[in-house]
Amino acid sequence: MTPADGIRVERADGIVTVRLDKPERHNPISFVMWQSLEAIFRDLAADHSLRGVILTGSGKSFSAGADIADFDETRGTPEQGINYEASVDAACDAIAALGVPVIAAIRGYCYGGACNLAMACDFRFVSPDACFAIPAAKLSIVYSARGMTRLVSLVGVSEAKRIFFTADAFDADRAIANGFADELSDDPMATGSAWFEGIAHLAPLSIAGSKAILNMAAMTDRPFDAALAHDVTYRALTSADYREGRAAFAEKRPPRFTDE
Amino acid sequence: MTPADGIRVERADGIVTVRLDKPERHNPISFVMWQSLEAIFRDLAADHSLRGVILTGSGKSFSAGADIADFDETRGTPEQGINYEASVDAACDAIAALGVPVIAAIRGYCYGGACNLAMACDFRFVSPDACFAIPAAKLSIVYSARGMTRLVSLVGVSEAKRIFFTADAFDADRAIANGFADELSDDPMATGSAWFEGIAHLAPLSIAGSKAILNMAAMTDRPFDAALAHDVTYRALTSADYREGRAAFAEKRPPRFTDE
Amino acid sequence: MTPADGIRVERADGIVTVRLDKPERHNPISFVMWQSLEAIFRDLAADHSLRGVILTGSGKSFSAGADIADFDETRGTPEQGINYEASVDAACDAIAALGVPVIAAIRGYCYGGACNLAMACDFRFVSPDACFAIPAAKLSIVYSARGMTRLVSLVGVSEAKRIFFTADAFDADRAIANGFADELSDDPMATGSAWFEGIAHLAPLSIAGSKAILNMAAMTDRPFDAALAHDVTYRALTSADYREGRAAFAEKRPPRFTDE
Repeated sequence: MTPADGIRVERADGIVTVRLDKPERHNPISFVMWQSLEAIFRDLAADHSLRGVILTGSGKSFSAGADIADFDETRGTPEQGINYEASVDAACDAIAALGVPVIAAIRGYCYGGACNLAMACDFRFVSPDACFAIPAAKLSIVYSARGMTRLVSLVGVSEAKRIFFTADAFDADRAIANGFADELSDDPMATGSAWFEGIAHLAPLSIAGSKAILNMAAMTDRPFDAALAHDVTYRALTSADYREGRAAFAEKRPPRFTDE
Repeated sequence: MTPADGIRVERADGIVTVRLDKPERHNPISFVMWQSLEAIFRDLAADHSLRGVILTGSGKSFSAGADIADFDETRGTPEQGINYEASVDAACDAIAALGVPVIAAIRGYCYGGACNLAMACDFRFVSPDACFAIPAAKLSIVYSARGMTRLVSLVGVSEAKRIFFTADAFDADRAIANGFADELSDDPMATGSAWFEGIAHLAPLSIAGSKAILNMAAMTDRPFDAALAHDVTYRALTSADYREGRAAFAEKRPPRFTDE
Repeated sequence: MTPADGIRVERADGIVTVRLDKPERHNPISFVMWQSLEAIFRDLAADHSLRGVILTGSGKSFSAGADIADFDETRGTPEQGINYEASVDAACDAIAALGVPVIAAIRGYCYGGACNLAMACDFRFVSPDACFAIPAAKLSIVYSARGMTRLVSLVGVSEAKRIFFTADAFDADRAIANGFADELSDDPMATGSAWFEGIAHLAPLSIAGSKAILNMAAMTDRPFDAALAHDVTYRALTSADYREGRAAFAEKRPPRFTDE
């Protein structure tokens, strides 16, 4: 699928970079971009040579958030508002459902809906100039419930309330301290790429299964899906990689995994 | 409703102060006081000019907890015991359900059932002399399951077990470090009042919706109520404040929110 | 029940020590040992003079984890794999269900399935040389969903993903910092014994009830069982210990609890 205007997708060595790309305006996310992000991450699920994704922004910022300039048109009525939030959730859920790790590489602004995208990623690598806020209370908006649940899972309920009730910005140091961000780096993209190199030898079906189950354990807004947990476990048990793992262990050699 | 003996309710500039008020005994909470606290916080829900509540104690302490002196009379039989805990839960749930932020301003003792009240608030601002304990294991009592769930959401399961299994007291520094408390202040009441000033310009329906959803995400003892999440979201979307928020953004002026 | 080969059970003063005991191989856990651990902890539930359990390993390590040497035989087929994980879960759940505190006293290696056992305990007391890893991604295995849920409850979802996606080892300092471990001690066994002395005067039914409810609040992979919460609460309310607790309070003397 061709990405919407404002999104660029690049690929190198099994790692895809999805780039929010309207740098002159700090990469605001329009309604069609939310829809496109969902489609992009859904399509990536079919790519069995994919090892990971980095989500980032062009220029100085990750993203200033949902494009408020198109709110009158795209979420002026209550029904549009509900529909808009459903598209935000669909994009974020597609990131969380993808069976490879996704890292958000964040510089500059990461505001509002951009935090939702970042929280749907598995890790947030941030530069010292990164700056975060969820100013829903400045617009009389109630943020996505799934996004709020993700925030509670990362920073706890009290810090989540502080972030929503005050709409105050917080910097990279606070994001590291409160659990929103995972790594502080002068070059989050490079740190993300190096991180993927570090896990290149590991079993893809194990990582995919862990991601699915850990996300379910953290997302308290939905019942834990035991059938899905069983499926990802069973898929790994029936894989050639599982036989290879034991054979390599017995032969005291490194395993060669193939995602099969 | 007239508060029970031992509770004082004051109001200034949209902020209500609920004060546990038997300072000569460190503000113990009798059975009728639990019932009165539920009624007070339920009544406050109807007050649309309310911006916030501070819950505190008169004199040197927040509260020494449930009044053990009346246990023989009010929770002597098992049925009374169950009923008593239901009243504690009802008071705490009324605090958590109120659509404005509630801050516990805590000095001195915050023991037993007083911790349950404090945890039902959104934030706990504490003085350096504040001191916490849940000595249920000294009385062969099992604490309210909702209160335990709140403690797990604030401090994690291991620290919660330490608090319950040992019945040991912990001080303000530990409360800040483990997540039980949010702010250390020589004057928690003044810090609470200033905090409410800081959010006075923000949209009430957004804050109310965030509080409802964040509490559901944190309270793992009940299924997440997606219908309630939808309701608070929809209410904000249909509000005059939502139109005002976008208009103010477009006109580059501060919004004037009215909770409508 | 006689423990399986490789497990030793000792008792002194109401505290049972369960010891993984194949020190020449860092105490690997065979399939029959998982089954035996379940039986041992289930049997302990019937012992009303039991005050606590310490789970530890003989020699230099806690345990190197599930015995991969017997994987071809015990989890070679997918059905065996599912069955094997069910036995791991049954052992861990028996530890978590036991109505007294269980402390893991950990030196040296605590790897793979041994982390699952350790996480099912209430606390992990660790020596400075303790070392942790869950290398499921090196074998193309998906770890037990209950174990993953326990890890999320202890360290949060992002750190849990780091542990599973990278399979990297982490040391005692990191385990203390991320919440996996609770106490750093040069002699975790002695620290565990002293900890049990510190709570010997407290009410057993209160501790048992707290443990049951706190575990349910933390384990997001299953709905909270309100009926069980009611049962443990009611059992404490109908106990002789509850009357004794109030009597001792009224008479200003220490209570003498009997677990009845």
